[in-house]
Amino acid sequence: MVLAEDLAKQQRSISVAEFFEKNKHLLGFDSPTRGIITTIKEAVDNSLDACEEAQVLPDIYVSVTRLEKDVFRIVVEDNGPGIVPENVPFVFGKLLYGSRFHQIRQSRGQQGIGISAAVLYAQLTTGVPTKVISRTGARTPAHSFELMIKTETNEPDIRVHREIEWDRMHGTRVEIEFKATLAAKKRLLDYLRYTAVVNPHARIRGEIDGEPCTFERVSDEVPPCPKAIAPHPHGIEFGLLKRMAEASTAKLEEFLVEGFSRVGRKSAEEILGVAGLKGSRKASALSSQELKALLEAMQAVQVPPPPASQCLSPIGEELIVQGIEKEYPVDFIKARTRKSSVHSGHPFIVEAALGYGGKLPAEGQAQMLRFANRVPLLYQQGACAITNAVAGVNWKAYNLSQQGLPTGAVMVLVHVASTNVPFTSESKDAVAAIPEIEKEITLALQELGRELKTYLNRRDRSRQQEDRARAICSIIPDIAAKVSEIVEQPPVDTAPLEGRIMRRLVAKKRTLDGQVELSVHNYTAKPVSLSLSLLSPDAAQDAIPKPDFVDRVGDDYTKVWKCALDPEASWGARYTGGGGGTLDVRGVDDRVKVVVDLDV
Amino acid sequence: MVLAEDLAKQQRSISVAEFFEKNKHLLGFDSPTRGIITTIKEAVDNSLDACEEAQVLPDIYVSVTRLEKDVFRIVVEDNGPGIVPENVPFVFGKLLYGSRFHQIRQSRGQQGIGISAAVLYAQLTTGVPTKVISRTGARTPAHSFELMIKTETNEPDIRVHREIEWDRMHGTRVEIEFKATLAAKKRLLDYLRYTAVVNPHARIRGEIDGEPCTFERVSDEVPPCPKAIAPHPHGIEFGLLKRMAEASTAKLEEFLVEGFSRVGRKSAEEILGVAGLKGSRKASALSSQELKALLEAMQAVQVPPPPASQCLSPIGEELIVQGIEKEYPVDFIKARTRKSSVHSGHPFIVEAALGYGGKLPAEGQAQMLRFANRVPLLYQQGACAITNAVAGVNWKAYNLSQQGLPTGAVMVLVHVASTNVPFTSESKDAVAAIPEIEKEITLALQELGRELKTYLNRRDRSRQQEDRARAICSIIPDIAAKVSEIVEQPPVDTAPLEGRIMRRLVAKKRTLDGQVELSVHNYTAKPVSLSLSLLSPDAAQDAIPKPDFVDRVGDDYTKVWKCALDPEASWGARYTGGGGGTLDVRGVDDRVKVVVDLDV
Repeated sequence: MVLAEDLAKQQRSISVAEFFEKNKHLLGFDSPTRGIITTIKEAVDNSLDACEEAQVLPDIYVSVTRLEKDVFRIVVEDNGPGIVPENVPFVFGKLLYGSRFHQIRQSRGQQGIGISAAVLYAQLTTGVPTKVISRTGARTPAHSFELMIKTETNEPDIRVHREIEWDRMHGTRVEIEFKATLAAKKRLLDYLRYTAVVNPHARIRGEIDGEPCTFERVSDEVPPCPKAIAPHPHGIEFGLLKRMAEASTAKLEEFLVEGFSRVGRKSAEEILGVAGLKGSRKASALSSQELKALLEAMQAVQVPPPPASQCLSPIGEELIVQGIEKEYPVDFIKARTRKSSVHSGHPFIVEAALGYGGKLPAEGQAQMLRFANRVPLLYQQGACAITNAVAGVNWKAYNLSQQGLPTGAVMVLVHVASTNVPFTSESKDAVAAIPEIEKEITLALQELGRELKTYLNRRDRSRQQEDRARAICSIIPDIAAKVSEIVEQPPVDTAPLEGRIMRRLVAKKRTLDGQVELSVHNYTAKPVSLSLSLLSPDAAQDAIPKPDFVDRVGDDYTKVWKCALDPEASWGARYTGGGGGTLDVRGVDDRVKVVVDLDV
Repeated sequence: MVLAEDLAKQQRSISVAEFFEKNKHLLGFDSPTRGIITTIKEAVDNSLDACEEAQVLPDIYVSVTRLEKDVFRIVVEDNGPGIVPENVPFVFGKLLYGSRFHQIRQSRGQQGIGISAAVLYAQLTTGVPTKVISRTGARTPAHSFELMIKTETNEPDIRVHREIEWDRMHGTRVEIEFKATLAAKKRLLDYLRYTAVVNPHARIRGEIDGEPCTFERVSDEVPPCPKAIAPHPHGIEFGLLKRMAEASTAKLEEFLVEGFSRVGRKSAEEILGVAGLKGSRKASALSSQELKALLEAMQAVQVPPPPASQCLSPIGEELIVQGIEKEYPVDFIKARTRKSSVHSGHPFIVEAALGYGGKLPAEGQAQMLRFANRVPLLYQQGACAITNAVAGVNWKAYNLSQQGLPTGAVMVLVHVASTNVPFTSESKDAVAAIPEIEKEITLALQELGRELKTYLNRRDRSRQQEDRARAICSIIPDIAAKVSEIVEQPPVDTAPLEGRIMRRLVAKKRTLDGQVELSVHNYTAKPVSLSLSLLSPDAAQDAIPKPDFVDRVGDDYTKVWKCALDPEASWGARYTGGGGGTLDVRGVDDRVKVVVDLDV
């Protein structure tokens, strides 16, 4: 039998760098194809976060260059505030190091893992140290580093550090070389495009394997940087409360008011009353039993929900619609930003948009765009709470077909913004199945679904009306002909009647007794501006009203009249002449105009 | 503008305990419902691993007790080798600490996170320290601990440590209290059952919320403990090679032979030749450039695949079939253990089984049983490479219907065994989409699919034949009657003919001129053993052959003959008597026998 002593020899501590080196797929480095996208995503996330914190309009440069058959250099450079030189080695050379982990507010990076994972991947696959340049302002020099990570200890290993000249006033540049393939180039470009859609204030220039691309900013306003808030009394757990109390030097009442969001003096007193504790006691002196009573009281007493508007930064319905319309021509598009909600004490906001028709492919499953804290999610769609929620909606109730996801010319966008987005893994590909979040997504989509249904019904109704009108109009001339035969009169002009039924714009030309008459009647529901153009032998010098423009073309004259007509309004012109030629109506959609030439 | 200095103040190190406390859903603590299962799973994994290492037949006790409305105590106790007292605080009180992370061999636990995550969850939700008792042998006392984790540093916080009396000679007991619900009790029992299926040598007793349950062992053989192997030259990456070389004191040739599996002296020389390096140089003296050349040579030179039979422990086709048949009565069951394969240098083996019919529900999607390193996977079925691979097989080609997964009375079991199972997150719920693994699963399922198809075809063919035979037999008596009418003869006995067509066993009784005749003809394809029993007034004392048994029942006699008949064989008996009574055939399935009584 193996003795416990033998087993004990094997037992030892595992550094977090060793752990993630072995489990690199957890960080989005599961294949050489994915490595490039993951690295760019993490670097761009950092750049956008830093620019937002510094309230700088982001100008981000991304390049991917093939060095050898399977080795690529990835560069991401920004005009952000830079990183102080003492911290650069830790930001890039230590996993679990960062500024945003301990803050309760929406940010793209949360974990302090992302970019150092790329450094780790580079040293694992090529052994090449990562180059970082950073400068924090005009009066400080730029610092250049070459660094790696000591895997056994998860500490930075600085190979080179020197001051250099750099033409940027402030910003950060990172240059990483690792084994990769560019098989997912399309997905990379999609990532950049989607990032631009939800960050309309960012300019992103790319040079991907020699091919340049630019996503210009469409807004010159930096969104306000979300502010960190204190934990909310309803979301806190025992262990955290205990740590906070132990670390506090304040009296209990101050501890509650200052340590938690939405707890004012009145709520604090109420909490203390329910817990049976005196506000004058030291928070650090409470026993476990007293802390449990305090926690129960904190969760029982009513306080307002967390101040989501401070700590969250939704994109907004208008910008979402603009972003989508820029990239996807659709017939219908609506967006919805829900009011904020809470999961395990973390405030979150769900935004969603629904697009229909246009150039979306009519076959297959809906196009899905998933975002979390303004970052596009590109992988693991099947494992994502967003996909779950979309598939859980009864789309048939909104006149769409459905096989899991809705099918047909549909696009669904969902953005989850939270102080703590619960991802299914460190690679941040998919949102975990948290019931509160799924419910908010469902509600947003149901609201949008109802609007889409109204649109589709109206469209179908107007198509139906048109079909009926078309059927009627197709028999009117026959009826008219039969009637005129019976009453022994010449056939009447049925076009105006058809125009009225079909809600069209009807232009007519008739020549009678050496007089040419032109007329236009607007039977549509909208005002129209149009020009009538007629090329014929008549000079039309006595025309009333006068043409706006006359031009001689050989033996003929082009005469042009402009007019604007409200619904149901008419316009007419007449002049002496022999008629002939072809009347042309411009400025009106072909589908709503009827031109009747009674001379023909 | 926020200055880099302001941002720098926020930047700091994040302890791995802080990280996982915030991201506890990554460890399988995303809801109070899941916590209990996750904890038991991690503790049982450790117990089974330790018992295997010590070659002890595992005897595991699991209990879940409700203490308050939403607080449960979870106990897992084993008869394993125990843990030396110096290491107990680290095993339970430090994330990323363990014996199996650095070894290349199949084990249930890989990460050194699992059980300490439960300790962390307990202190977060209830603040109650975890109790551990461990004893390493009869001559050492048991040690009892109460411990927690210092979140800020990820170091153990020992509250109590003392020697105690314990009636076990060796083993470990852990007792954890946290907030939870038992809503997933059925899933917990499923987990225990599935664990028993793939660990037939383990005995698991449970007491879940007062309800006892036992899963007895069905095998008294401890599976051999997989042996750790050296890394394989084809799977190694640059960074790891560099670290190994830097840490080595050996000459290059020794370094290759001793440091890598499957590299003998000949392969080492070949590698050195390709790399253009001398075997007498110190491994630690190689430059980056030389290491790169060495790596390329290591990957170019042919060596056998990793020694999977040493480091992996598949369940085996026979035990899988036994395990399934024990739990699920099915009509068809086949299992397949594939030969070993390699993903990124890690050997792995895929095993699969396919069950059909029996008591499996005829409607809905196939029942899926997923396993990795002998551990059942209970969550995130949709995100798992196993599910992907199952859904990717064209089941229609094997006569099954399919909607993503196959549908109908089907059960699919897949087990992935590897020295490094690539899970999609630390909670080890789903296997990541690694193409090599998916391919092996697909191949295993296709093989099984072909066998299932053969079975279904045969079944359908025999059903079809039976239908036809039934149709013919149904008209034979009519034809016989018509013929006997035409030829003016008494009706003939058509039963033997039907028996021949229907492939039945036909037993006949006829009484003619004071002689009773019994006969049996075996028209089936299989030999049969049967007994004929006849209760009638005849004593049958002159019977040839003599009955094997005669008993007087009132005025009547029960006579019993036994006989064995090969296909197409006949048997007969006769005696003097008046006939009557009922002939009974025993030992033959009702569906294949025809009894014809011509006396009636």
